[in-house]
Amino acid sequence: MKKIEVIQNVLEANEIIASRNRQLLDKHKVLVVNIMSAPGAGKTSLILETLTRLKDRLNIGVIEGDVASTVDAEKVQSEAKAVVQINTRNMPESCSLMAAMIESALKDMPLNDIDLILIENVGNLICPAEFALGEHKRVVISSLPEGDDKPIKYPLIFVDADAVVINKMDLLPHVDFDIGAFRRSIAGLNPDVEVFELSSKTGEGVEKWCSWILEQTKADATR
Amino acid sequence: MKKIEVIQNVLEANEIIASRNRQLLDKHKVLVVNIMSAPGAGKTSLILETLTRLKDRLNIGVIEGDVASTVDAEKVQSEAKAVVQINTRNMPESCSLMAAMIESALKDMPLNDIDLILIENVGNLICPAEFALGEHKRVVISSLPEGDDKPIKYPLIFVDADAVVINKMDLLPHVDFDIGAFRRSIAGLNPDVEVFELSSKTGEGVEKWCSWILEQTKADATR
Repeated sequence: MKKIEVIQNVLEANEIIASRNRQLLDKHKVLVVNIMSAPGAGKTSLILETLTRLKDRLNIGVIEGDVASTVDAEKVQSEAKAVVQINTRNMPESCSLMAAMIESALKDMPLNDIDLILIENVGNLICPAEFALGEHKRVVISSLPEGDDKPIKYPLIFVDADAVVINKMDLLPHVDFDIGAFRRSIAGLNPDVEVFELSSKTGEGVEKWCSWILEQTKADATR
Repeated sequence: MKKIEVIQNVLEANEIIASRNRQLLDKHKVLVVNIMSAPGAGKTSLILETLTRLKDRLNIGVIEGDVASTVDAEKVQSEAKAVVQINTRNMPESCSLMAAMIESALKDMPLNDIDLILIENVGNLICPAEFALGEHKRVVISSLPEGDDKPIKYPLIFVDADAVVINKMDLLPHVDFDIGAFRRSIAGLNPDVEVFELSSKTGEGVEKWCSWILEQTKADATR
């Protein structure tokens, strides 16, 4: 079973680079949040809302992961202190960011002038669950139109999350989504996870999410 | 770069098994449609609508691919002639169905009594683009809440598609989605692709999609 051996090596190599990233980040007192979701769940919009509300209190960098294009990096450019776009199209694992890609990106970040880096992972509920990047917090966004069964169908990414954001709450009257059932599925997989209900479009609930991010940076600064 | 060599071998091995699947399917005059999308775009709902409308005219089998759970197979069980669930959680590529998984599934399908097999791939816009399964037609579903930029961000899966379904048209008044821009992006990548606008929820546009499926089975039967 040659393939399985190689995959383990890739994951092991990734872990080593992830720890190195983490050491570098801790040295510079930079908090890193890895934001993961299915395509179109609203990662970029939530990052934009977070930048708008916190940019006067924190210096925020953004690392944008996409298979192709720079559309997301262009959207956040004016609000962030620094932005790096990673395109994974021709990389060995195109379906997730990996620690080595973050290691490269961090070289382009002014770490001494940054408090927080938001990483927008590739839109995918499977691969990003497997690759640590050196981040301090892992966040999964689920949006209402995707349906409430995602934790049952993609459990791994929810098991390791520090926070789950239920996004597009403004669409609740128009879609079939049982918030109670979704919360129960999440709690079954990960009882301690923080859950935020919000809409990046209307702004509802975004303040609470931003307060949580601020708290994490404070906890990080007192290390 | 050992890993790239191994990945190429996996892809080559996959192609060989995919051709073998295709030969078996052609021998039994079974049309196979590989349905791909991001999580929650509506693969299962569209399959259910297709079963409901075509089950009196075609014998339809369904192969359900998921990382975990059998919730989708349970939903389609009563309407399909035969259903096989594949869980990829512990398989070497958990982010896509692969030809070898389909080869196993076909052994559980009564191919002599089946006209059409709908394969619901794992919810993912990246990995499934790389793995041929032996299918005759490749379909990508994009749903309005995901946003109109998906062809720009995940081009590969759209380049090779025979049809693109724009789903959840009932949500058009509630989301920002530029159908013209989406169609232009698709046309730029793949000028000959069929595009269907529909809502599995209201039924709008589903008839036209089902007619296309019927046409494909007829073209298939005259081979």
